[in-house]
Amino acid sequence: MAIQSIDVPARTLVETVMAEIHAWVDGRLLAAGARAPSIRVLAERLGVSKSTVVEAYDRLVAEGVLAARPGSGFYVAKRAAPLALMGTALAGAEPPPDRAVDPLWLMRQALEPGEGVLKPGCGWLPADWMPEPAIRRAFRALARAPSAALLDYDNPLGYPALRRHLADRFTARGIAAAADQILLTDSGSQAIDLVCRYLLEPGDVVLLDDPCYYNFKTVVAAHRARAVPVPYTPTGPDLAVFAQAAATHRPRLYITNAALHNPTGASLTAPVAHKLLTLAAAHDILIVEDDIFSDFEAEPSPRLAAFDGLERVVHIGSFSKTLSAAVRCGYVVARGDWIQGIADVKLATAFGNATTNPRIIHQLLTDGSYRRHMEGVRARLAGAMGRTVRRLEVLGLKPWVEPRGGMFLWATLPPGASSVALARAALDHGVVLAPGDVFSLTNTADGFLRFNVAQCDSPRIFEVLARAMDGA
Amino acid sequence: MAIQSIDVPARTLVETVMAEIHAWVDGRLLAAGARAPSIRVLAERLGVSKSTVVEAYDRLVAEGVLAARPGSGFYVAKRAAPLALMGTALAGAEPPPDRAVDPLWLMRQALEPGEGVLKPGCGWLPADWMPEPAIRRAFRALARAPSAALLDYDNPLGYPALRRHLADRFTARGIAAAADQILLTDSGSQAIDLVCRYLLEPGDVVLLDDPCYYNFKTVVAAHRARAVPVPYTPTGPDLAVFAQAAATHRPRLYITNAALHNPTGASLTAPVAHKLLTLAAAHDILIVEDDIFSDFEAEPSPRLAAFDGLERVVHIGSFSKTLSAAVRCGYVVARGDWIQGIADVKLATAFGNATTNPRIIHQLLTDGSYRRHMEGVRARLAGAMGRTVRRLEVLGLKPWVEPRGGMFLWATLPPGASSVALARAALDHGVVLAPGDVFSLTNTADGFLRFNVAQCDSPRIFEVLARAMDGA
Repeated sequence: MAIQSIDVPARTLVETVMAEIHAWVDGRLLAAGARAPSIRVLAERLGVSKSTVVEAYDRLVAEGVLAARPGSGFYVAKRAAPLALMGTALAGAEPPPDRAVDPLWLMRQALEPGEGVLKPGCGWLPADWMPEPAIRRAFRALARAPSAALLDYDNPLGYPALRRHLADRFTARGIAAAADQILLTDSGSQAIDLVCRYLLEPGDVVLLDDPCYYNFKTVVAAHRARAVPVPYTPTGPDLAVFAQAAATHRPRLYITNAALHNPTGASLTAPVAHKLLTLAAAHDILIVEDDIFSDFEAEPSPRLAAFDGLERVVHIGSFSKTLSAAVRCGYVVARGDWIQGIADVKLATAFGNATTNPRIIHQLLTDGSYRRHMEGVRARLAGAMGRTVRRLEVLGLKPWVEPRGGMFLWATLPPGASSVALARAALDHGVVLAPGDVFSLTNTADGFLRFNVAQCDSPRIFEVLARAMDGA
Repeated sequence: MAIQSIDVPARTLVETVMAEIHAWVDGRLLAAGARAPSIRVLAERLGVSKSTVVEAYDRLVAEGVLAARPGSGFYVAKRAAPLALMGTALAGAEPPPDRAVDPLWLMRQALEPGEGVLKPGCGWLPADWMPEPAIRRAFRALARAPSAALLDYDNPLGYPALRRHLADRFTARGIAAAADQILLTDSGSQAIDLVCRYLLEPGDVVLLDDPCYYNFKTVVAAHRARAVPVPYTPTGPDLAVFAQAAATHRPRLYITNAALHNPTGASLTAPVAHKLLTLAAAHDILIVEDDIFSDFEAEPSPRLAAFDGLERVVHIGSFSKTLSAAVRCGYVVARGDWIQGIADVKLATAFGNATTNPRIIHQLLTDGSYRRHMEGVRARLAGAMGRTVRRLEVLGLKPWVEPRGGMFLWATLPPGASSVALARAALDHGVVLAPGDVFSLTNTADGFLRFNVAQCDSPRIFEVLARAMDGA
């Protein structure tokens, strides 16, 4: 079943069948002109009566989605809209107001500059937390770098000095990787995207944490794969549901965070990591582990890539969250043969690397700036976390889990409160909140808000939130 | 018919049917577990007898590609290899020797650094042709830029000052575009890729020039679309073939160069541009026009985007070829609603922009460095073109067309010579040549080599070439 129908118990069977066909057409699993499944086949597959399918098909014909060809069956009549990433079509200059739970709405709100707009819903540190003098120094050094660094394409896997340094870092963390098992990318997002391009086919099933980082949802949609949710618990994914989903849906891939799960701030325990990898091996599921928040941890939590030895785990990350969102540079760590294949996908779709950003990252990693900076950030985040928890508790919001570090606090709203309604009201007062359903695959997180504690310094955030809650 | 079979006249009908199914499976048009077309349907579609299909299916079962289920038909048994971009599978650490006509082979050869390796086959200017002092100045200015420029994500469409400047440039060239009709990207390649992601569905047909820039082939393959070749003539695409292909294949898209076609150096004439757009309108074909070489022209040739007014033409480009391959920054110019949709795809798959490279480009465009640099480059290229033509003529290679500018010379080999054989022999002597079939969709260009005249200064290139031709 498509995700779309999970949260709609009141839907009739006919509507469920219609939603399924809509999902196939929108997800390009059925292209324009393709023959729809026969009534008998679909009835069997969905476990409904043939007359239910007949009624659904009749209504889809009336909608113009299907066309009946007498004696031959039903065909897809409509051309799917240009790539619809999250159910809502994306064409149209202005996003309609109901985009409030659309991840792209949040991304745009968070990225659009606005005079005096506060962004506790965004996913990055304030610029004034970053090691600006060290970064300026690295840019000045870059202006004096060898000509090739400023003028040429870099080699296909990316700046060798940074790859060697990263290989040492990963090995120290128990992930034995050689420099040629590392591909540098333009960003962590590009790293996920390239891995999905290499490993996924349209129609493949991908297991995602529910809730999860919204970009995982949009990337899966962009690859025309089908996301199946696995509830996230305070110690990692719900293993019983994972096992059941593995058996039922034969997923190709599971995409998750390595530590400090986004949005909940929870981390995987070692026993859960072990059981998860055992299940993945039994069902031949590959795993993409996004390690982007790992350096926010004081004590490292388990890494699937370390347990697994890069057999079926692909490890990705970047420095956008820890050093600078402007100096973008991500990486993929994987089996050597996969790295070659993923590098070919990068060549084919983005061509060469630049060496400029990797050089800046390399300097900051090797001159001690990064280590000192992250020590300061971890301490500062711990303070901000405590303050934000207390300020939210006054308003009746409670932490779902006590994070071991990082910037995210997944806050439970008082009963009856809707995070979408609060986000809409707060936006009118220049505060961008992150409503829970932006991260949910099942739209079951409207009772949560994700706070970035590093962006919660201003008392105005809590005043606006209090007023929105009173008004609701 | 899939492209793969065009150049294989000696193939039996059974093999043709097998190749078709292989192509569908490899191109993910038939996923593992999917039912293959019935014998009757496929026989009708391919215009062969049912017994031919039966034999082909039997052999595919023997190969393990299909599985027969008695009474139910044939199903896809094998899982497709990880995304195969050009027919050859890309996994495996070392590319096998037969990758010599694989675009990815050329990309890797051209990008891999090598002591003393000469690269007349690569697609960019030597680093010492670039305005290095101005670029260093721009990096130093960047080190003093406002904090946000070094630390924050940029807004979703990219650095506004550069978009406004580009809008003025395009308007001056007859392409009326507002700043919010421009999306900045990380590269020209990313621009093409995002546009394809927005406009293409798996299985769509894309018309490509034959020969064409090899990246167009790999991008189409990466989107699981099907490329149909249109021969390129000295005045643009062959309009008769274009019209026939439009009627036969109902293509969604045509991807081409705006001027100074890669690899031939030919340019579109105004009458051909007019007729092409008329055909595109009649058959509802969208056009992506890659303008990456336009600033190498002394006098501008016709722009499809200017003729069309950005109705069905998407205009893309970058400064990687003219300013620096390391300061990567591309753009998409299109209808406003499409730009919003393409920006959403960028958010979903690559997240935010950085403002660093756009700032460097903006400074070089606005302080006069770019204009002066390009005047010098055009004069220097004209000299290099004349010298390279003369040196090649001594060896019996003739220009297919006299380019109006740019770096590429598409040279016809003497009868009987094979560019693949020459490229292999030259590589042994440290010279990377670009064999014609790397650019061909039909493998009919083995009698051509593409020379980058800016990379042809060393006499050793012509000595190695002469020896390779003697040895052949």
